[in-house]
Amino acid sequence: MPELRHDPVQRRWVIIATERAQRPHDFQVDRALPQAQNCPFCTGHEAATPPEIAAFRDAAAPNAPGWKVRVVSNKYPALRIEGDLERAAAGQYDRMNGIGAHEVIVETPDHDKDISDLPIEHIGQILKMYRERLIDLQRDPRFRYILIFRNRGAAAGASLEHPHSQIIATPVTPRTVAVELQSAREHYAVKERCIFCDIIVDELRQHSRIVTADDDFVTWCPYAARFPFEMMLAPRKHAADYAAMDDAQILRLARHLREVILRMKDSLDDPPYNFLLHTAPSYQMQRRRPGYWSTIEQDWHWHIEILPRLTKTAGFEWGSGFYINPTAPEDAARYMRDVRVPVMER
Amino acid sequence: MPELRHDPVQRRWVIIATERAQRPHDFQVDRALPQAQNCPFCTGHEAATPPEIAAFRDAAAPNAPGWKVRVVSNKYPALRIEGDLERAAAGQYDRMNGIGAHEVIVETPDHDKDISDLPIEHIGQILKMYRERLIDLQRDPRFRYILIFRNRGAAAGASLEHPHSQIIATPVTPRTVAVELQSAREHYAVKERCIFCDIIVDELRQHSRIVTADDDFVTWCPYAARFPFEMMLAPRKHAADYAAMDDAQILRLARHLREVILRMKDSLDDPPYNFLLHTAPSYQMQRRRPGYWSTIEQDWHWHIEILPRLTKTAGFEWGSGFYINPTAPEDAARYMRDVRVPVMER
Repeated sequence: MPELRHDPVQRRWVIIATERAQRPHDFQVDRALPQAQNCPFCTGHEAATPPEIAAFRDAAAPNAPGWKVRVVSNKYPALRIEGDLERAAAGQYDRMNGIGAHEVIVETPDHDKDISDLPIEHIGQILKMYRERLIDLQRDPRFRYILIFRNRGAAAGASLEHPHSQIIATPVTPRTVAVELQSAREHYAVKERCIFCDIIVDELRQHSRIVTADDDFVTWCPYAARFPFEMMLAPRKHAADYAAMDDAQILRLARHLREVILRMKDSLDDPPYNFLLHTAPSYQMQRRRPGYWSTIEQDWHWHIEILPRLTKTAGFEWGSGFYINPTAPEDAARYMRDVRVPVMER
Repeated sequence: MPELRHDPVQRRWVIIATERAQRPHDFQVDRALPQAQNCPFCTGHEAATPPEIAAFRDAAAPNAPGWKVRVVSNKYPALRIEGDLERAAAGQYDRMNGIGAHEVIVETPDHDKDISDLPIEHIGQILKMYRERLIDLQRDPRFRYILIFRNRGAAAGASLEHPHSQIIATPVTPRTVAVELQSAREHYAVKERCIFCDIIVDELRQHSRIVTADDDFVTWCPYAARFPFEMMLAPRKHAADYAAMDDAQILRLARHLREVILRMKDSLDDPPYNFLLHTAPSYQMQRRRPGYWSTIEQDWHWHIEILPRLTKTAGFEWGSGFYINPTAPEDAARYMRDVRVPVMER
């Protein structure tokens, strides 16, 4: 019998229909990476991208080789950084001009290494760059939210093969974040506890949906996962702001994240995937105004969602907002727990 | 400069970023249909499906050839029809058993004809079958919503090539419908006018986003379309319930729908697409209880959304609920208006 499950944070139902279940390697999925010719993200091609915004590099000169992690504007930005925000009515509708930021974090000079192939210290550099860009972009009062995400594989929407993350800063709080924030806020108002902390404590106690946990971080398959092998990663200790992590914590996150991605890749034969960071809304962190936004640090708990792309979104999903997940999260977690991941100290 | 637009019904922002624009035939999209071997929906293979629920047929015997439109249970249903609804807490979470209906409407015995290739009278039979199934399923007090949708092409999530629609009846109101209903209700509460009627009047006056209109129906590209060439079709005269249409209206809808799909196919070289019907929530139509649900007939306006699948959903969309649309709805509407569609009276 299929089962309907409700996600208390994202406030949506999913259908867990395991009678359609497939073993992890049975998913028919396009594993192709986008075609690469004259990759603009490779070392030596720095002139092919817009000028560098930031980089971790050995050599002193920007826009030259010698970098480990490099940030540039997106050459085809969805939003533009220059200009004042204009909000206006358009007849009965509402519009704003497309002010925002759209940056690319090139994660490594090495075209062929996905993030989980890199040494922990290098992954730490990427995750530190997330922090640096969040801190910088949070200073801009035009932005309400800064979303960092990663598309890997053509089926996950990547248009370039070279490993990279993207940042989009938007002048409105995205609906997905607003819904999560509302859930968290209402939970806290009643219980004086963080909803994410409650979920983490309960998941660790039950253990059936845990993928891996260490002293600092935990990754689990959410109770009402939309997609097969969907995962949530969060710090065990309450923390609203990703950018408040110190270097040591970021290195521990790098180790945890690499293990999680390796478990996913081994279970699913290197699937296309998306990953996205939900840190606290920017406007709030920045202003700390009294009133509505002042409780953000108690309400929010930053987290990373990891979404392997094994199923297709069709008319039912677009028309309902429901998802049909053919793999029970308990089964997905067990597969990924049982994978033997090589212990690597670096 | 990109532009942010807000959809007043679905309450989401989209980014219209036409600097990434492509001409209609430039979208790189997988137009493949699913592979077919021993298609279970073809005439003569009636035994390969679960028994027939309904059919329009010449021959008297069910589950034999001679049908024009045939409805069967989905062989791999997402929800099950048998049993009582059980709502329960699952620790801190909420669950229900997977009660619902999942049916397939085989639209024609002819494997190779998409809906727009059929005579108007035959399309009318398909649309009448939608009505018959809605009326029948609305009698079941366990169901809150009945969604009819259609996936065409592998990239749109179709697993069989043979033209078919699907029906899923769910025991909760889907979030997408709940959001639209809330918008419509709040609009009516303030203005005593239907939000969809207001949109239709304004779109017809502006004309720039109209794809086609006749005396009974209008199809336009929504102001804040998520996807390139996304369309909305609705009756010009206020009507909450699709199933209240009479046979003559349904035939006029068949003519209008065929024209719209032909305009889309010609503009986009036969793209994969989804289409979905948002009629009034079932629970309400059925009970007509005083109070919250009793105003549904004034609040709701049935509509069909047509979604060509030309772009991929990636980390940004999953993390934000925002969409990036590279084609302005005004441009999409103009392309589709300018297509010469053969006038066919049958």
